[in-house]
Amino acid sequence: MKAVGVIVEYNPFHNGHLYHLQQAREQTQADVVIAVMSGNFLQRGEPAIVDKWARAAMALAGGADLVVELPVLFSVQPADYFAKGGISLLQGLKCEAICFGTESGTAEDYELFAKRWHANNKHLQQVFQEEKNDGSTYAAQMSHVIEKITADLTIDVHSPNTILGLAYAKENARYLEPMQLVPIQRRGAQYHDHTIASGSFASATAIRKALRNKKSELSELEEVLPLSSIRELEQHVEVDWQSFWPLLKYQILVQSPEQLREIYQMTEGIEYRLKQKVLNADSFSAFVSEVKTKRFSWVRLQRLCVYILLQLKENEVKKALSEPPIAHLLGFNKRGQAYLSEKKKSFSVPLLTRIHQKNNELWYSDIKAGRIYALANEKIREQDYGRVPIQK
Amino acid sequence: MKAVGVIVEYNPFHNGHLYHLQQAREQTQADVVIAVMSGNFLQRGEPAIVDKWARAAMALAGGADLVVELPVLFSVQPADYFAKGGISLLQGLKCEAICFGTESGTAEDYELFAKRWHANNKHLQQVFQEEKNDGSTYAAQMSHVIEKITADLTIDVHSPNTILGLAYAKENARYLEPMQLVPIQRRGAQYHDHTIASGSFASATAIRKALRNKKSELSELEEVLPLSSIRELEQHVEVDWQSFWPLLKYQILVQSPEQLREIYQMTEGIEYRLKQKVLNADSFSAFVSEVKTKRFSWVRLQRLCVYILLQLKENEVKKALSEPPIAHLLGFNKRGQAYLSEKKKSFSVPLLTRIHQKNNELWYSDIKAGRIYALANEKIREQDYGRVPIQK
Repeated sequence: MKAVGVIVEYNPFHNGHLYHLQQAREQTQADVVIAVMSGNFLQRGEPAIVDKWARAAMALAGGADLVVELPVLFSVQPADYFAKGGISLLQGLKCEAICFGTESGTAEDYELFAKRWHANNKHLQQVFQEEKNDGSTYAAQMSHVIEKITADLTIDVHSPNTILGLAYAKENARYLEPMQLVPIQRRGAQYHDHTIASGSFASATAIRKALRNKKSELSELEEVLPLSSIRELEQHVEVDWQSFWPLLKYQILVQSPEQLREIYQMTEGIEYRLKQKVLNADSFSAFVSEVKTKRFSWVRLQRLCVYILLQLKENEVKKALSEPPIAHLLGFNKRGQAYLSEKKKSFSVPLLTRIHQKNNELWYSDIKAGRIYALANEKIREQDYGRVPIQK
Repeated sequence: MKAVGVIVEYNPFHNGHLYHLQQAREQTQADVVIAVMSGNFLQRGEPAIVDKWARAAMALAGGADLVVELPVLFSVQPADYFAKGGISLLQGLKCEAICFGTESGTAEDYELFAKRWHANNKHLQQVFQEEKNDGSTYAAQMSHVIEKITADLTIDVHSPNTILGLAYAKENARYLEPMQLVPIQRRGAQYHDHTIASGSFASATAIRKALRNKKSELSELEEVLPLSSIRELEQHVEVDWQSFWPLLKYQILVQSPEQLREIYQMTEGIEYRLKQKVLNADSFSAFVSEVKTKRFSWVRLQRLCVYILLQLKENEVKKALSEPPIAHLLGFNKRGQAYLSEKKKSFSVPLLTRIHQKNNELWYSDIKAGRIYALANEKIREQDYGRVPIQK
């Protein structure tokens, strides 16, 4: 059986994602679509709107055959580490192709970019280092570096999905047998769109905004969300950063600057600014607005806040990032099950199907993340221990 | 001017406390009554029902001339360290007598006890060590040891106020110029009474219970509380352990057993039991009930929970306990002010009248405790930084 992989967040799963999965299957003629999905905390440093099980169910209903979790230490990361984790899992699960949404660029563009990157690696790192010292954000630095080697390609390096695509290409090219790259042009909405335009495509950002604004009228979202997503959203409590604000504020107040400095990515003395600004902030967004600087963008701060909330220490994260991630199975359908039967033995990644006393150390940070996520609302169940994959 | 000292919590200040202060002045013929009062976290491991400023105001209205704060590292402690901190402050502020409420015993009894204790110190420590190994609680061990040297005295070592009185006597006897001991027999209610009987005395426990049960009818408490206490209670948000339950639960969940083990008094592997029981507990009291064992009494666990909530580490607390506490002035009246003018230069303890950038390191744990206390309700103001003593 041939598998194509996608790296996703589904926050929530919408018609754009449905189209993406259909195209992945169609364009690669794969038998199985494997989704590697962020768990309860996402790439941009946000808690997921509904838990990973609800989002895995949406994914299965929307066409994924196998849903595997991207561990939190890889999911709440800039593009590079996020891609490293995702590609490593897809490679480990023996996918032959990776399909990703993008605003620009052909497969050839992405391949060329990856080749140039690796050919010029040392030179690029030097350029990157120079950029680093000029005080701009990581994303801006990365864009500048990438621009230098993509000037002749049809790639717009300023859109978030393209940046992720480039990171996938770069990471994929490290492997002896790289997967086929299948970029899909995104339809309708752009990543950052804040309103739901007419038509059947809207960005997840716009959908979340609509959900928050008119919680009672989920039905109005029927145009842009599959029915299965609406059903899952109806059944689950919606979570956002504000749910964790009292806990974050408490943690920043109770820890000394020295203790905060042990947290992953707590650099440049930002701990003092956090402790100073948290005192009078009355909401999460007011807090981030107050702390924000040129060097510390909103997204960078959101990620830092996840690291604080989950108490992820520098040494713990660095160690985890130096090893390949483990695959935690969230769900599958019959095709996914057949694929598992056929290929499981050839997988080069450990596959956790159930977290229990004997394997929980392998999943330590994620069990912790799940339990903290569940504090947002008492209706949220234990996320890992004793849970079994969804069978559709 | 002659000063008598009292060591108190005033949670809240009631008619029994009023009587105590009157007796202190009358029996010692002192010009000034100095109250050393626990701040926002109390001896039995509880947050105070209203903040230290409201309670200092009640104390001044009820007859105290000077109110000084007992630092949190000394206040949330078993009798011995609580007494060590309190006596040290009263000695440093040059009190000539200490007056304490008790259920039994004369001044002579307390003096005799202290003498015997220090005469037999090595022997007693050995007995104590033997007791320690038989699996009973600290309080029970202490009672047994004390019983052995008080059998012929009229002291009932089983009541909490007597245990505190004995600890004061023991600690006071260490000084070159011990203060005169003035035990006052408590009137009306007993420490642990849970109901307000008719008459004008009720225990603080019963008053807090009544306050929680019928918040709207403060006037019913007029019989047992001075009007000034009622007024302060009306103006302030009432805090209890449940206010901090989400924060405590979060902290126990997010920390590893190794991290929890750094907390002061986290011994005998109790961290594993805490992490296990916190998962399904839905309130603070349900949690403590579940964790409770023969070795870990309710009060011992409450204190441990304060240490966790405030993230007080073993090394930090031990260091602080090895040094004399600092006096933070909460309030004074004209008599108190006159006493300060006359005696300030002879004080053997540093007196903080205002916390600011230059002295805040001396008050670090207490600033932290105040900020965490304030998380219980947004109406609670910053407790230390920039606050000035109440002048009555």
